[in-house]
Amino acid sequence: MKASRILHSLPALNTLLKEEKASSVCIVTSSALKNKLGWALKEINSPFTIALLPDGEEAKEWKEIEKLLKKFVHYKLDRNSIVIALGGGTIGDTVGFAASIYLRGIRYIQVPTTLVAQVDSAHGGKTGINFSNYKNQIGSFHVPIATIIETRFIHSLSREQVIDGLGEIIKSGLIKDASILRLLQNETVLSLIKSPRLPHIITKTISVKNYYVSKDFKDSKERQLLNVGHTFGHAIELKYKISHGKAVLIGMLQELAFTESLGLSDASVRVKLSELLMRLGISIDTNMKANWKTILHDKKIKGNKIEFPTIEQEGKSTLITLDLETLKTFL
Amino acid sequence: MKASRILHSLPALNTLLKEEKASSVCIVTSSALKNKLGWALKEINSPFTIALLPDGEEAKEWKEIEKLLKKFVHYKLDRNSIVIALGGGTIGDTVGFAASIYLRGIRYIQVPTTLVAQVDSAHGGKTGINFSNYKNQIGSFHVPIATIIETRFIHSLSREQVIDGLGEIIKSGLIKDASILRLLQNETVLSLIKSPRLPHIITKTISVKNYYVSKDFKDSKERQLLNVGHTFGHAIELKYKISHGKAVLIGMLQELAFTESLGLSDASVRVKLSELLMRLGISIDTNMKANWKTILHDKKIKGNKIEFPTIEQEGKSTLITLDLETLKTFL
Repeated sequence: MKASRILHSLPALNTLLKEEKASSVCIVTSSALKNKLGWALKEINSPFTIALLPDGEEAKEWKEIEKLLKKFVHYKLDRNSIVIALGGGTIGDTVGFAASIYLRGIRYIQVPTTLVAQVDSAHGGKTGINFSNYKNQIGSFHVPIATIIETRFIHSLSREQVIDGLGEIIKSGLIKDASILRLLQNETVLSLIKSPRLPHIITKTISVKNYYVSKDFKDSKERQLLNVGHTFGHAIELKYKISHGKAVLIGMLQELAFTESLGLSDASVRVKLSELLMRLGISIDTNMKANWKTILHDKKIKGNKIEFPTIEQEGKSTLITLDLETLKTFL
Repeated sequence: MKASRILHSLPALNTLLKEEKASSVCIVTSSALKNKLGWALKEINSPFTIALLPDGEEAKEWKEIEKLLKKFVHYKLDRNSIVIALGGGTIGDTVGFAASIYLRGIRYIQVPTTLVAQVDSAHGGKTGINFSNYKNQIGSFHVPIATIIETRFIHSLSREQVIDGLGEIIKSGLIKDASILRLLQNETVLSLIKSPRLPHIITKTISVKNYYVSKDFKDSKERQLLNVGHTFGHAIELKYKISHGKAVLIGMLQELAFTESLGLSDASVRVKLSELLMRLGISIDTNMKANWKTILHDKKIKGNKIEFPTIEQEGKSTLITLDLETLKTFL
């Protein structure tokens, strides 16, 4: 995988666009974001055109890709043009895919506007749209030339959106870099938004993701460690319609209880995670239970075995192979 | 670029499919080819599903990609499935593109049924479809795991289709491997079809293409040597609506006359090329002239210069930078 640059604060985009000598620049965002982030657009001093996508999962549709590509043609984007994805994960996924297939791939820059996109989805080069009711059925691997991290975007996020990002941040601390958990020690969800530690926390979280992604650009075994909390979490997310980040937090707590019961992880990890969430002010509903049938759709299952990412201690994780039966008994 | 395997004759496909442990196999072809190549389908002894595309450029449409991807979903193709493109260049381009974006890219095999696809378009990993009236506006780089060369497909081609392939074959001889020209020495278009030398000629031509492609997977400067004959040829093709291969042959003759006038190529190259075409039975209309305006659209033009691939002697070519004015004066 070609490493993508991480640049802090929006003005870095201006320097980058000059360096990259783009023949033209097209910013893709949603109409809601275009209004909300007028201040950000004003800070970009290269000439650019704008193309709009719907908000949320509606962006990730085949017909939206067609419309977006027609915009690219209309704006006469060429091999030396640069596309900028200004938005959350769905906009990043869609724009990255469109850029990857336009003229067999042109450069793009991720400017993620949500915390979860800043720490997670804007990195790793996975692009994708939904198709025939399947999530990310169509897509590509196309690495952005850079990702711009602008914490001012975080100021206007809802509490739920911040917790969404925190799920990934805490996960990264647990699987690889325990110093992230220490940086969160004295924060609440509210204080974090404007905390001077936030850029540092984001950078460290991105490093964890990039560490696993760089092991193998396409999906590799070790990359699956990034799926800690997802086996239970994804099933809980679907059942209770809660946010992905919150679901992963609940998933991690429950998976820790499970691996603890097998003697594979230390009880202190789970206890300290509960305490951290309490201090942050994130309430956890301990009654939520994952459906066994949903878990059976987990991609990590092969035959009657599952490749299960486990946290041994803070900052240390391994992938173990378990009998599905063991998991079923626990549930 | 990951090198793609070249395998000779259809039965090799059976061995390959076993080796590759495909979870399922889907053959994509056109309904005309499905009828015409019933004998070939019978030789494939793995179970497979079939998806159909229109013949010719109609296959390379956005809506056809959507239909094809829906077929892939319907057939439940997964990450371990293999798609087979059975057809000419347009089918290969379209299927390669669909395979490259389905589940972020699944394996595919090229089984080119025309001579030009066997020596040229099935190799190099360039996929693409037309969009908004632009050729190959949308596409990707996705290398097939293998290309199967089956010369029995050549038996049922029209004379025009064979000449189309010969254009690329002769070009490869001129720019890099003069032994190809010697192998053609005693053939006519008709004798070539069943010549025992044909597989060898095809393999050598593929090697020339792969040599340039492997220099740099994405479009590189040296890859442009493959465009010999295309500056004049492409303009002649558009003006007189003749086949690409024939146009490239005419283009090469005229470009040789041009570089000869500048003292950059030896007169014997052009004379020997004319003689070879005569022996093969390919008649050349020497009155066809390229439009200057069409040439101005050539991708090799930058400012008032053009990167012009020239043949110095048989098997030896270089890229030179010329003033556009010099070219205009010649025309």
